[in-house]
Amino acid sequence: MLVKKPHYNVAIAGATGAVGRKMLAILEERGFPVGNLKVLASVRSVGQTLSFKGSPVTVEELTENSFEGVDIALFSAGSSASRQFGPSAVKSGCIVIDNSSAFRMEEGIPLVVPEVNPDAIGSDPGIIANPNCSTIQMVVALKPIHDKFKIKRVVVSTYQSVSGSGQKAINELEDQTRKLLDGKAVKPDVYPHQIAFNCVPHIDIFLDNGYTKEEMKMVEETRKILGDSSIQVSPTTVRVPVFYSHSESVNVETEKPISAREVKELLSAAAGILVVDNPEDCEYPLAIDATDRDEVFVGRIRDDISCENAINFWVVSDNLRKGAALNAVQIAEHLISR
Amino acid sequence: MLVKKPHYNVAIAGATGAVGRKMLAILEERGFPVGNLKVLASVRSVGQTLSFKGSPVTVEELTENSFEGVDIALFSAGSSASRQFGPSAVKSGCIVIDNSSAFRMEEGIPLVVPEVNPDAIGSDPGIIANPNCSTIQMVVALKPIHDKFKIKRVVVSTYQSVSGSGQKAINELEDQTRKLLDGKAVKPDVYPHQIAFNCVPHIDIFLDNGYTKEEMKMVEETRKILGDSSIQVSPTTVRVPVFYSHSESVNVETEKPISAREVKELLSAAAGILVVDNPEDCEYPLAIDATDRDEVFVGRIRDDISCENAINFWVVSDNLRKGAALNAVQIAEHLISR
Repeated sequence: MLVKKPHYNVAIAGATGAVGRKMLAILEERGFPVGNLKVLASVRSVGQTLSFKGSPVTVEELTENSFEGVDIALFSAGSSASRQFGPSAVKSGCIVIDNSSAFRMEEGIPLVVPEVNPDAIGSDPGIIANPNCSTIQMVVALKPIHDKFKIKRVVVSTYQSVSGSGQKAINELEDQTRKLLDGKAVKPDVYPHQIAFNCVPHIDIFLDNGYTKEEMKMVEETRKILGDSSIQVSPTTVRVPVFYSHSESVNVETEKPISAREVKELLSAAAGILVVDNPEDCEYPLAIDATDRDEVFVGRIRDDISCENAINFWVVSDNLRKGAALNAVQIAEHLISR
Repeated sequence: MLVKKPHYNVAIAGATGAVGRKMLAILEERGFPVGNLKVLASVRSVGQTLSFKGSPVTVEELTENSFEGVDIALFSAGSSASRQFGPSAVKSGCIVIDNSSAFRMEEGIPLVVPEVNPDAIGSDPGIIANPNCSTIQMVVALKPIHDKFKIKRVVVSTYQSVSGSGQKAINELEDQTRKLLDGKAVKPDVYPHQIAFNCVPHIDIFLDNGYTKEEMKMVEETRKILGDSSIQVSPTTVRVPVFYSHSESVNVETEKPISAREVKELLSAAAGILVVDNPEDCEYPLAIDATDRDEVFVGRIRDDISCENAINFWVVSDNLRKGAALNAVQIAEHLISR
């Protein structure tokens, strides 16, 4: 239980990564009442300086003793760091908001998108899990549809940017692109194949059922967040040569009769969503427009011509913001506003 | 009716375009028995020189009188040129294989993918239409599935390369990419929005039902080619920053029970298809691998976990070859082999 205070001591674990830096920036941007701030990372980043509200903050080593006196810890240091240090952070009395996949599907751990299921957070949370980026933007759009029309089945194909794989992948896309334009050969490193000027239908590892872990996250996390294990999801996740923001082509079949007109109205009034849907003026969501924005952008909303009670839409969001850092900070905001 | 001869007089209308040049190259590559060759284009290209079997061929103006003595004319000069000159070419006694969308859905005009429906070509064809690129690669993969399991519904999302919009679009992607890497602003020209490092869910014009013309081609052409108007198709077509080859994420629901295992076997034995499906070794179809190849590449074949009697797969093919020029030449080969 978080005691109300004018300021909260905050720690960021994995502060030097792409998402960690965004977390720091978003805390500042949104005026989160930060008291004492700790920026934590692995030993090789110790001594680096980050900036918060114009002042330097020195990176300290992430250890089991890092969380004394901390109220809220935002973790984005990978699953193994979350497993190693998350429970001791909770023991120190702080609430952990964890961006890794370590605890997402664990019974009793809330998996939260604040616009969708804030009430999943109990009165005395220890760890709160932040969902996977490709799931977050989809469920923000699905939630109002599910509430009104009851979703039966979702078929989704993603167009995911490289920033979801961190700074090294951003560098790899840039480097490969330059080399190819100069007629030079490229050698993949972060990804199993060339990502520049290519589409790679492989994100995270392959599982026995032929789906990737990223795809199965979209199935399982969607059910957990929407609180309905009857929702069927058929995902294909694909990495594309885009730096920031994920796009998704989503087909939704519902129990009740649904129409594009109703969905447009519904999503236009929904929290966290910006409907951009004037195809006649070439207006629809685009990765380059969603980048550095907070909203989940939805457009190309249209009746499915192949099936009764179904629609198609195109949803785009900044995977580092709403897909990760912003969603985590919004969970923290929810905690202190209760 | 094409009379059997040792050589056939061939004309290419639109010979200087991206597809026209491929047609010329593929005729040479495959040893098509070309007698007299005419390369035709609009007046501004007249006098340009192309090369065929090591000899120069001079571009002549495409007119109504271009087709005297021509046996087979391959058209890829756009719909209005096909409408203007196609019928007069037929009147001159030649068979027109037309890559434009002008006649595709016209009653009595065969719409042909040689691996799928060669028998749609009657004994005395005038114009034979070549389907849209995104449709061709999909139906090559769907045909064996439809024959064995009867397709009810297809949900498809495409990842289409810029070469589908011609040489200007190829230049635009290259130019925008260079500028953005140099930190300069870009101004779209061929496309309504920046295509470099972006995904644009808009190909061809928007229709009243909210779908694009490209999307509706995938619906209507699929039905015509597979000869079954009961097949339902729900398409989303997207342009991605890839130079060559289209990728597609395809979900197929069938009447009869289907399994990924059976589909893998079926497609492995099918003409024109190369199954690349060893995810454990990171082997699946990729745009960069399909480029300059003739086959339709299929992989990521897996049971749909959201629905009975359904599968997912990923299909990739060179849109300028199998999606356009190669398919047209294969139609010509079929004509002379009958």
